[in-house]
Amino acid sequence: MSLINRQLRLKTRPEGLVQRDNFDLVEQAVPELKEGEVLVRTLYISMDPTNRVWMRDIPQYLPPVAIGEVMRALGLGRVVASRSSKYDEGDLVQGVTGWQDYLVLHEDAKGYVRLPADPGIPLPTLLGACGMSGVTAYYGLTDIAPVQAGETLVISAAAGSVGSIAGQIGKIRGARVVGICRGADKCRHLVDELGFDAAVDYKSGDFKQQLKAATPDGVHVNFENVGGEVMRTVLSRMVIGGRIALCGLISGYNSGERPSDDFSPFIMKRLSMRGFLVLDYTKTKEAVGAIAGWIREGKLKAEETVEEGLENAPVVLNRLFDGSHRGKLVLRVDPQA
Amino acid sequence: MSLINRQLRLKTRPEGLVQRDNFDLVEQAVPELKEGEVLVRTLYISMDPTNRVWMRDIPQYLPPVAIGEVMRALGLGRVVASRSSKYDEGDLVQGVTGWQDYLVLHEDAKGYVRLPADPGIPLPTLLGACGMSGVTAYYGLTDIAPVQAGETLVISAAAGSVGSIAGQIGKIRGARVVGICRGADKCRHLVDELGFDAAVDYKSGDFKQQLKAATPDGVHVNFENVGGEVMRTVLSRMVIGGRIALCGLISGYNSGERPSDDFSPFIMKRLSMRGFLVLDYTKTKEAVGAIAGWIREGKLKAEETVEEGLENAPVVLNRLFDGSHRGKLVLRVDPQA
Repeated sequence: MSLINRQLRLKTRPEGLVQRDNFDLVEQAVPELKEGEVLVRTLYISMDPTNRVWMRDIPQYLPPVAIGEVMRALGLGRVVASRSSKYDEGDLVQGVTGWQDYLVLHEDAKGYVRLPADPGIPLPTLLGACGMSGVTAYYGLTDIAPVQAGETLVISAAAGSVGSIAGQIGKIRGARVVGICRGADKCRHLVDELGFDAAVDYKSGDFKQQLKAATPDGVHVNFENVGGEVMRTVLSRMVIGGRIALCGLISGYNSGERPSDDFSPFIMKRLSMRGFLVLDYTKTKEAVGAIAGWIREGKLKAEETVEEGLENAPVVLNRLFDGSHRGKLVLRVDPQA
Repeated sequence: MSLINRQLRLKTRPEGLVQRDNFDLVEQAVPELKEGEVLVRTLYISMDPTNRVWMRDIPQYLPPVAIGEVMRALGLGRVVASRSSKYDEGDLVQGVTGWQDYLVLHEDAKGYVRLPADPGIPLPTLLGACGMSGVTAYYGLTDIAPVQAGETLVISAAAGSVGSIAGQIGKIRGARVVGICRGADKCRHLVDELGFDAAVDYKSGDFKQQLKAATPDGVHVNFENVGGEVMRTVLSRMVIGGRIALCGLISGYNSGERPSDDFSPFIMKRLSMRGFLVLDYTKTKEAVGAIAGWIREGKLKAEETVEEGLENAPVVLNRLFDGSHRGKLVLRVDPQA
């Protein structure tokens, strides 16, 4: 066989939104497998805000993607050829696939999870509610800032992959859940379809007043994905002793601008904040098991927005920042997947 | 008797440093005591960064001082006349005296502590190491961000009333203690007199490099009093999972400028931060007892800078912000005290 692997390699570091020409689309033959290697066909790529951070040459939790390197990304692939006893042809593989059609994987490579050929869960859901996004939401509200019944939980980017699951977990735990998102349609969706108690459009002129009205008892827990002015407004509603699970600061990922962060309320209101990364949770079975159970019981809805075509990865990623998607944003790379 | 009470009343809200003419100096006769009241002569006034915040018309943990109101401040006074069975003439009283010579106090007023005429501790120390400053340092390092033996603790405003005690408590707990202050003299003092392991001058051109050299293992706990660029530099040295006890943000108290705070490191390094106010600790006996014990044993040095004259309160307060004092800054109001 003579398979061609298309790769998107970082050519220049984007400023602001990502452009197609920040990447080179390179085609090269898939090499012959060596003993212990498997060939993985990328089926879906997970589109995550953190991808944008990896493109920036700033200190972060992983090395930035180097110029000339294949763009790093989580994804889901299928083993199409195996010279390993640890992987069978047809197995699903979850891990860093990168922005490319094929991955040659050594059987001992760390950070990859082998799944059965038919896992019983829709494949995009494996990257969303039952993947890193769901696990992030789960540990944010059970370990980082455990929310209690009767408390008010405010979630930013609430219609996104993490936020939409976090809100539903908040409801399952008995909290009053208020989502912040963009646009009246999404607000309605959060309340009518996902069971949020209220939703507020941060682009509306009276966002601050709306949030106040939606949080009459103040905010006990903030699951924060956005930062900047949105977070500043939430902080203004926190109760004394409130807790913040700091998951993301997406409002600043595209810009090198000075953030509008402010530590002052932390003293005035004796707040506590804990930043976290899902990669610190190596045993994710508990979370995935709980979420899959809630989905089966009809208590939690997994939502995905599926886009098409590896070549579109750079522009699809921008949808994370304009609020035009719903739930988990994934890119289908294999049209047959 | 016809005693005159001088009061400093807030006339206009300061912009930047406090000016004398932000206050009216008003003289009025001390009123006759009613049943249940005592007359307290102010001996010493505690000069605290939070005083500057109280002058600003912004949301905070107490109402701002109103225009026309006597400036709020903690202090130490002596009962000079009593129509109460709860206070005897000669008793010391600790609490909000305000910027004035005399206070008429009702015996049931909350927030005041009665001390014996001779408490066995120098009076300025009662406002410093054995007062709110010491208690703040104590709970910051035992409850908010408990520091462990072998960890590196970095303290900003380390030569100040809270910082100098916090550093010594850090040493007692077995930590490596690094102080940040202003000027070579103070740096030497922290190391030579107070037993800090290292001290760094934030005004030196290579502050960042010096802090790096002083924290070869990174920073496990940050006891933060300053905020702004100083704190940003400390955050750049935090280890993964580091903790911040957020006590003060003095760098921003004089200005309405946008702070240079940045939440990003909290995610990248999974940091946790807790803001606190000493007023939440109502049972302070444990802390005062421990500190007084360490002073007696020679393990902890209490330091004070004493200034003179009620009328100088506005300009003396500014010394908190230029780093020209050492230890607790107090104002002697009664020349005989």
